[in-house]
Amino acid sequence: MRLDAIGEFGLIDRIAALVTGGTTPQAGQVTLGIGDDAALLEISPDRSLVSTIDTLVEEVHFRRDWTGPEDLGWKALAVNVSDVAAMGAEPLAAFLSLALPGEIEVEWVEAFTHGMADCAREYGCVIAGGDTVRSPKYVVITVSLLGTVERGRALLRSGARVGDLLCVTGTLGDSAAGLALLMAGDLEIAPSKEAARPEFASLLTAHRRPRPRLQVARRLATFGAITAMMDLSDGLASDVRHLAARSGVGVRVRRADLPLSEAARAAGAALGIDPADWALHGGEDYELLFTVAPSALDSVRVQLLSSDLPFTVVGEIVEDGIWLVEADGLQVTLKPGGFAHFRSTEGGSSGA
Amino acid sequence: MRLDAIGEFGLIDRIAALVTGGTTPQAGQVTLGIGDDAALLEISPDRSLVSTIDTLVEEVHFRRDWTGPEDLGWKALAVNVSDVAAMGAEPLAAFLSLALPGEIEVEWVEAFTHGMADCAREYGCVIAGGDTVRSPKYVVITVSLLGTVERGRALLRSGARVGDLLCVTGTLGDSAAGLALLMAGDLEIAPSKEAARPEFASLLTAHRRPRPRLQVARRLATFGAITAMMDLSDGLASDVRHLAARSGVGVRVRRADLPLSEAARAAGAALGIDPADWALHGGEDYELLFTVAPSALDSVRVQLLSSDLPFTVVGEIVEDGIWLVEADGLQVTLKPGGFAHFRSTEGGSSGA
Repeated sequence: MRLDAIGEFGLIDRIAALVTGGTTPQAGQVTLGIGDDAALLEISPDRSLVSTIDTLVEEVHFRRDWTGPEDLGWKALAVNVSDVAAMGAEPLAAFLSLALPGEIEVEWVEAFTHGMADCAREYGCVIAGGDTVRSPKYVVITVSLLGTVERGRALLRSGARVGDLLCVTGTLGDSAAGLALLMAGDLEIAPSKEAARPEFASLLTAHRRPRPRLQVARRLATFGAITAMMDLSDGLASDVRHLAARSGVGVRVRRADLPLSEAARAAGAALGIDPADWALHGGEDYELLFTVAPSALDSVRVQLLSSDLPFTVVGEIVEDGIWLVEADGLQVTLKPGGFAHFRSTEGGSSGA
Repeated sequence: MRLDAIGEFGLIDRIAALVTGGTTPQAGQVTLGIGDDAALLEISPDRSLVSTIDTLVEEVHFRRDWTGPEDLGWKALAVNVSDVAAMGAEPLAAFLSLALPGEIEVEWVEAFTHGMADCAREYGCVIAGGDTVRSPKYVVITVSLLGTVERGRALLRSGARVGDLLCVTGTLGDSAAGLALLMAGDLEIAPSKEAARPEFASLLTAHRRPRPRLQVARRLATFGAITAMMDLSDGLASDVRHLAARSGVGVRVRRADLPLSEAARAAGAALGIDPADWALHGGEDYELLFTVAPSALDSVRVQLLSSDLPFTVVGEIVEDGIWLVEADGLQVTLKPGGFAHFRSTEGGSSGA
């Protein structure tokens, strides 16, 4: 059924029916959700509020033939959960604004909402309000997310100190590798075709259904020794610049130390691309980038031991400059945006 | 200068420079604004948080040749201030997500930001974060707004009781009249042409630079006798349905009692349209719709005496049905969306 057959308010009713029954957040309370002029929330007096907003635009951040509506709904919320997690905070309530062309199928919107509700359930927040409007051509999705953090515990980008180690969680470049495979036409969205290349499935999943590192981020926030933290959304080369600028320091990254998955290495070999370039310039990793004094590194290892997520030291904070130590030991300036096609198609997403 | 010449992060720096120095809100504190993964805010323990989001899409909600960037920046925030005000709350912090085609001039974005910052200053909130992304063709503007209200004082849509009087502030239909004049080509955006029809200037201003009724809404919230409140954004005929549905009641509106401005009457005469139809179906009034027991009406008059804004009783709450008493006394069903061209061009905006 086409969207313009049921109208805006019919759509809101359907969305509202799909998102009720989410987990009640521990760190606050949504006392009034969809249906009034605004949502109403109670924030515990010992917690600070965090707030972020992110937009995904069709043909810029996603293609409807490459990403199904459920994955897209998941991703639209996940990229915001990643921002909230990167502050050391817990998500509380999400607000969805959907700009939709009239020819969109209602079933597409429902599947999108299902995916977003799945993500909300997984990360313990509720979809508490929103807005649906008509768009002349492209789907534009904006999600704003509120979260809370124990007062004084928020982890900012601005605390890195010279001598700190630069660390990342997980592996980098998987999402970019997945996108590169889709762009190369090597894989299409049809499950049958994907099944033919099972070694690349994890890369497509990384691109379509990123998993923000909420648990690890919360542990790092509670731990206390982390000096700065942010999430990796624009690619390490861009993101370290933001962290360095906010902290008033420089940074050195070593190419040889970038954590790469076997799948990304295989895709790099298949496409003739150094997978470390995906890690540096690809974006959409939604891993955590954090800094810690060398003396606290072992304590971080202990803190994260019981999580399944490895972390890797990829460089260190220096006085100034943004540097890359190449595999041959040569130190060069690490420039952002090495892949022009990502730059032009991905747009960019600022911190709050 | 075209936007794609300075890139996204250059743009964020310019926006950040333009929005610093806003009023510090009384009802909470923005302790960290633009530049990190999310903004950080402190909420007073005796207040509840309200949160809303609204999107304006080019060619659906605005045309760049009919609305200048400063007015559009004002309006993008004002429609959210209106939602927060309609809860009886005070605005605290706004978050802006801008999806922009690459050919947009940087000066356009700066003027937009100026207009939004003007509105933030006027209504006592700060622009605390956001996101800028590329759009393939149309400008899409999403603003989310946080506000706070004394705990237990929020005014919802759901409290109207049978016998309550239905009241609106100000005059209705002015914005729709302004839009109708623009659509009829009677006026163009050039100031010289507008000056030629000074009697219509207020209608264009109502359309381009709406003034949310924050002060009056706050007085009504503090007053305590108001049973339900919402803002008028979709047109009275649509909006009374929402209020009635949320309250589980019916409503009766009298056409003869709709408050119309002299300018709207003149425009109606010029275009051959009953201006009461603009009031019922036009939308974008951003006046307040509220209900109150007849016994409390005089107290409301006293409360609002010192404000310059009149209010008018336009009907009452009944058991069920959505009714319009026509000028000849005949009672008919009040259907939403009488003007098909508004429906299709305006889209719609849900409450949070």
